[in-house]
Amino acid sequence: MTTEVINAEDSVPEQSLAELMQATGRAAVAAAQVLAHAPSRQKAQALRVAAAAIRKRRSELVIANQRDTETASRKGLRGALLDRLKLTEEGIETMALGLETIAAFPDPIGTVLAEWTRPNGLRIQRVRVPLGVVGMIYESRPNVTADAGALCLKAGNAVILRGGSESQHSNQAIHACLLDGLNAAGLPSSSIQLVGTTDRAAVGYMLANMSAFIDVLVPRGGPSLVARVLQEARVPVIGHLEGNCHVYVDRDADLEMARSIVLNAKLRRTGVCGAAETLLVDRACAGTHLEPIVTALMQAGCEVRGDAPVQKIDPRIRAATEEDWFMEYLDAIIAVKVVDGVEAAVAHIHKYGSAHTESIVTGNQQTADRFLALVDSAIVLHNASTQFADGGEFGMGAEIGISTDKFHARGPVGVEQLTSYKYVVRGDGQVRRP
Amino acid sequence: MTTEVINAEDSVPEQSLAELMQATGRAAVAAAQVLAHAPSRQKAQALRVAAAAIRKRRSELVIANQRDTETASRKGLRGALLDRLKLTEEGIETMALGLETIAAFPDPIGTVLAEWTRPNGLRIQRVRVPLGVVGMIYESRPNVTADAGALCLKAGNAVILRGGSESQHSNQAIHACLLDGLNAAGLPSSSIQLVGTTDRAAVGYMLANMSAFIDVLVPRGGPSLVARVLQEARVPVIGHLEGNCHVYVDRDADLEMARSIVLNAKLRRTGVCGAAETLLVDRACAGTHLEPIVTALMQAGCEVRGDAPVQKIDPRIRAATEEDWFMEYLDAIIAVKVVDGVEAAVAHIHKYGSAHTESIVTGNQQTADRFLALVDSAIVLHNASTQFADGGEFGMGAEIGISTDKFHARGPVGVEQLTSYKYVVRGDGQVRRP
Repeated sequence: MTTEVINAEDSVPEQSLAELMQATGRAAVAAAQVLAHAPSRQKAQALRVAAAAIRKRRSELVIANQRDTETASRKGLRGALLDRLKLTEEGIETMALGLETIAAFPDPIGTVLAEWTRPNGLRIQRVRVPLGVVGMIYESRPNVTADAGALCLKAGNAVILRGGSESQHSNQAIHACLLDGLNAAGLPSSSIQLVGTTDRAAVGYMLANMSAFIDVLVPRGGPSLVARVLQEARVPVIGHLEGNCHVYVDRDADLEMARSIVLNAKLRRTGVCGAAETLLVDRACAGTHLEPIVTALMQAGCEVRGDAPVQKIDPRIRAATEEDWFMEYLDAIIAVKVVDGVEAAVAHIHKYGSAHTESIVTGNQQTADRFLALVDSAIVLHNASTQFADGGEFGMGAEIGISTDKFHARGPVGVEQLTSYKYVVRGDGQVRRP
Repeated sequence: MTTEVINAEDSVPEQSLAELMQATGRAAVAAAQVLAHAPSRQKAQALRVAAAAIRKRRSELVIANQRDTETASRKGLRGALLDRLKLTEEGIETMALGLETIAAFPDPIGTVLAEWTRPNGLRIQRVRVPLGVVGMIYESRPNVTADAGALCLKAGNAVILRGGSESQHSNQAIHACLLDGLNAAGLPSSSIQLVGTTDRAAVGYMLANMSAFIDVLVPRGGPSLVARVLQEARVPVIGHLEGNCHVYVDRDADLEMARSIVLNAKLRRTGVCGAAETLLVDRACAGTHLEPIVTALMQAGCEVRGDAPVQKIDPRIRAATEEDWFMEYLDAIIAVKVVDGVEAAVAHIHKYGSAHTESIVTGNQQTADRFLALVDSAIVLHNASTQFADGGEFGMGAEIGISTDKFHARGPVGVEQLTSYKYVVRGDGQVRRP
């Protein structure tokens, strides 16, 4: 429980990597046993002190982050990726606020989710308990260190954080603030551990050799990271997969609302998983709605790829290929298609989508209900932007990611989704017959 | 959707196994799309008609089962295993009643699990939806065919059933009754499919090659089956692992109650996963409680293995080895140990147990609460037999198994545990800023 973060060199011999990771795993399990029964106020205190430390050490965090971004620039990291790595003063304040929001949340642990009494007098309760030890594997964004650490702690879990080597100095600086909080609250410092090596083999070790310690893995990063985790993991995974999100503009859509929602869904931030990648327009309103929306997108700097009716609008619009309908551009590019009503829109979404987030714009309640019922995605919206796909926007304080699994957790993964339950049964001597 | 069960020979060439399984998978996905939106009354009708068919064809079921048990006897199947395979008239009625109980249950699909409104006016609902396609791999007990088929149908899932070859005729006869129900209700016959080959390679194929079709696998059988599934599966698994269950008799236990609970927990049925395997007795009451309980167990025909204080009671008690504390006997054998109070009991359970089901017998509420809070098992009981570890006894109608995972589902896996949820968000034009 007193295991500190071990600062190893970039490449550690295999034996010592195993030793390091086993020690990390054991320390996490020991911490989890304490956290499972830690009082709410102790966990909240740790988070509030950590938030204060983040504000106080703002300049240290900025300097650590500059080291990371400079190295990344030298290595030729491109715009969006470099952008995700960057920690601004505003981003630091958002992190601190996030910790305080999570601290103020009700403690999920010990909550009675259901209770009932059996005819034989047995009183049964389903009670929320922590998952145990969470393994978090992520890239770039250093704020994940604070968000994931805080969410796991609040849910009574120990967490092993394995951030990308590109953000190691930022992660270490943020982690030091979290340790301040744990120490001030008298909680085990191994409650939130940052893997002390940037050796890439550490990821493989977490995936394949730590099932005795880790109850669930949460990958957060690009498609190749997530695919690797799903392929190699020997423990359960909460998968954060790609978001090929759709907006469907129905025949009964208000044009102004549709234009506003499409522009926001595509362009507010193009690099988030909730950004729209394909626009579907009902053929019945294509004559009135298609051209104004496509023109607005192009005027806002968005590249448009489309089917034949869309291409007629502007000679710069190239034909969308079969691959385009599958693409998560994460960029100012959109694929646009004219479809025959809500049924065809749903069929397109099920064929090409990633079951993340889809929105319908329509003034027709029946059509909306049909879309909301039929589309089998984690989040379905009516008359709202897909960019609301976010734990914070859902009022969940923060999120560790958005799950496109149907298993265990779906959609934004916040505190509740990082818990399990057990059954507590109280009797007065009941035995089972016959 | 009209794909029927394909009755292939025992060993099918690899290509045709792949073809068979892919066709099964495609048919299941198509059925799942219908079931996700099937009205409650239609699903309930299918289950009631199936129950009626089971009663009507009782003698056919018995004959089919006799074929299986005779073959199994010839192959030298032992007592408990043969017992599990056997379908009695009483067992057939229990199956029919189980289907009717599940039919009468409220439909979980479409239930709003939570709803709230955000400051920006977005109305968010978390709505229960089916998981999709369940793959069920099981051994021996033919009633699993009916239970699993019914639970999956009720939860709006299609299911691919892969029973053991030893129970194939029984499974086919039960499956025919389920098909009667589906047909009568106008639901796709591929809603509940029985894999039409007893080729063992079909199991491997389900584990490794059907992730495009199967959303979750549920293994139910011996430790080797479950271990294989956990090792090879490329899709999420609801693991039904072994039950090394404990009863702890505390210093404040009423002797009569303790004796009654221990005898029932161990001996009511020794072959179920909720049977107690280890008895822990508080040293503070060993002088009064140990001998009467151990003697009662021995008089009831139970072999006792124990530590030194237990061995003193009777010369027939052999020393318990380290392996004994880990054992799931599933037989009339119990390991007995004297421990220093509730903390030592909890430590023993965490070291040797399988986190399935544990019970404390005590008249002291504080001690009970401590045990119930500290023991990290799917089910913890106070003053009741571990044999209540059962979905039916919990009032869940039936169960597909008892999960010792913490992930997704824990404890009895009934209808609710076979569902997921999605978020439905309703707005009036909201876009996200900044």
